[in-house]
Amino acid sequence: MKQAIPHETIKRLALYLRSLRQLSRKRVEIISSEKLTEHIHASPAQVRKDLACFGEFGTPGVGYSVKKLIAEIESILGLKEKQEVALVGIGKLGSALLAYLGFEKFGFRISALFDNNPEKIGKKISELKIEDVARIKEVLRRRKIKIAIITVPAANAQEVADRLVAAGIKVILNFAPHYLNIPKGVIINTIDMAIELQSLAYYLTHKEQSRASSTTTNLT
Amino acid sequence: MKQAIPHETIKRLALYLRSLRQLSRKRVEIISSEKLTEHIHASPAQVRKDLACFGEFGTPGVGYSVKKLIAEIESILGLKEKQEVALVGIGKLGSALLAYLGFEKFGFRISALFDNNPEKIGKKISELKIEDVARIKEVLRRRKIKIAIITVPAANAQEVADRLVAAGIKVILNFAPHYLNIPKGVIINTIDMAIELQSLAYYLTHKEQSRASSTTTNLT
Repeated sequence: MKQAIPHETIKRLALYLRSLRQLSRKRVEIISSEKLTEHIHASPAQVRKDLACFGEFGTPGVGYSVKKLIAEIESILGLKEKQEVALVGIGKLGSALLAYLGFEKFGFRISALFDNNPEKIGKKISELKIEDVARIKEVLRRRKIKIAIITVPAANAQEVADRLVAAGIKVILNFAPHYLNIPKGVIINTIDMAIELQSLAYYLTHKEQSRASSTTTNLT
Repeated sequence: MKQAIPHETIKRLALYLRSLRQLSRKRVEIISSEKLTEHIHASPAQVRKDLACFGEFGTPGVGYSVKKLIAEIESILGLKEKQEVALVGIGKLGSALLAYLGFEKFGFRISALFDNNPEKIGKKISELKIEDVARIKEVLRRRKIKIAIITVPAANAQEVADRLVAAGIKVILNFAPHYLNIPKGVIINTIDMAIELQSLAYYLTHKEQSRASSTTTNLT
């Protein structure tokens, strides 16, 4: 019987992976859980607990093989092969994400771009043509893309989400500051930057809370 | 004795506030907790529990006064007056956030911009001059700004964070994909978009987890 793994555990795996890749570039071969948490907000016990959800990876008293652990986490996260991603909304935020993130570096390839602005449709960004949002279903079904990022204004976000779901998208990272109604079986994570900022402002006047341990975003 | 309020509660308050403001614009005067959760991933019981952390706001069997609840939540979050914010890193992401978020609309005013690029320093974005990062301490101390957003590359993020802390910044929203070492008493929330995407990819191959309830970002 499989136990549901907390999403926080999954996110920490991605953080461990980043640290491990940095260590690998520095030719470190074996790493202890203590060392692995040096640049992550987690305790060594947390690392061991997180990894134990997925199997036995380390050698007690010795540590983890950096190379093996990278391979294991890549396999758990489904990052062995590049994941194709659709980006909907090629405005300022969408373009900034394209430029800023360096998707290839961390296991993704942006392989479809969509916008509803006739002045943008048909133009190219680094070899990739911007398609009409009306063609989302057609393009994504043909290309078998399962992951999408929404960077459209709040007012258009639900319509875009509906199109993505109809196109077979299974995972959505949403930056539109809006609640999105999504059927069961599709995962959506909303990064709502306005809400993040507002909730942080709270701590300016409420010092008792100054070591809160975590903050949560919507995931359905 | 004050109990620490979970950060998730604070974030939901910000979500309730957004819904309440929308309701207020539609001239709704009284709202039930059921109605309030219609566009939020939370149950009516959760709303009542969240608000109960801060006092008695509603009338049982009747509901909440929209106007009063807006005022109460604005007061709790410290949004009665515009909060001034410094933005460090006027690259693609920083500029996109400036344009995309509409800070004024949700209680903030960007009142200082910094970059380390000599070609950008001295230029203006909507009346605001981009200052040299070397002047962070001088400018922010004089202006008494307590909130900062970091949108610089990972390699520069720690240096910028150190400057912000030295300048008296108390709350940081960090978009650099990097662990930042921050002294106690300063709150940092890292929105790591690469990690968000990687952790979502997990759900493409692990269906048992398809209704995870929340995702967590670092907050120290």
